[in-house]
Amino acid sequence: MKKAVVAAAVVVSLGAVGGAAIAQVKPDVLIKQRQSAMTLIGKYFGPLGAMAQGKAPFDAKIVQRNAGYLDALSEMPWDGFDPSTKDVKDVKTRALPAIWEQPDKVKEAVQRFQSEVDKLQQVAKGGDEGAIKTQIGALGKACANCHDNFRAKQQ
Amino acid sequence: MKKAVVAAAVVVSLGAVGGAAIAQVKPDVLIKQRQSAMTLIGKYFGPLGAMAQGKAPFDAKIVQRNAGYLDALSEMPWDGFDPSTKDVKDVKTRALPAIWEQPDKVKEAVQRFQSEVDKLQQVAKGGDEGAIKTQIGALGKACANCHDNFRAKQQ
Repeated sequence: MKKAVVAAAVVVSLGAVGGAAIAQVKPDVLIKQRQSAMTLIGKYFGPLGAMAQGKAPFDAKIVQRNAGYLDALSEMPWDGFDPSTKDVKDVKTRALPAIWEQPDKVKEAVQRFQSEVDKLQQVAKGGDEGAIKTQIGALGKACANCHDNFRAKQQ
Repeated sequence: MKKAVVAAAVVVSLGAVGGAAIAQVKPDVLIKQRQSAMTLIGKYFGPLGAMAQGKAPFDAKIVQRNAGYLDALSEMPWDGFDPSTKDVKDVKTRALPAIWEQPDKVKEAVQRFQSEVDKLQQVAKGGDEGAIKTQIGALGKACANCHDNFRAKQQ
């Protein structure tokens, strides 16, 4: 429900859901905030990806904890893609113009990502290693789905 | 319970609770991760501070949502203060050496912050504007308590 609201807001404006006074937040701050959310998504997804690929020992407790963190973090980047950030030149960003040109596709990609995080939270509770690793893979594909379309290959 | 574990880990090592393979995470990445968590704590506390000070209209729903985000975010910065990050020279950081010299005081400050976030979550559910604003103030003081002792005044 909460996520549907966020996703709907992405369509309307790609912004303005961050709370009071968001309109006064400077574009470079919005970029820093969205990049911070992405950095932390990477921090907490990274070890899960390593587990799914057999590069780190499987630890169900870490999966459960990180899935909970990802549930919160998966709501945080999107209002940072405010249209005011489109033309900022003095901050490094890999955000592609397609983000603002294809809002429906962005909405779909965000919803897929959030849905895969939800599923990971559910599966992680069950503790089935195989099912958890499969779902980590599905979540990784949802990350890539958005990055492939909306993020520049190189910074 | 989960928070007690995190806080205990801060005492033991100021690190190593981030999940699998944290030992391989480079110091500059750890700094970026902890700064990202602080940036997002600022993002979601900022509007609440503005409400408490009468600079933004009070919105109980935003307080409830942001308090939930802060609950997750309040667990994320600490393992980034790994001892390996103490002597990094090529990344801007306001972290003071006192962080690694006074682990008990850090633990206390972290626990106070997390406790004030917990209380805000509880009070926010009740919806009493006066009580919520008072608790936002208490949380702000817990932020300042740590920053005053462990963060340089200027970057």
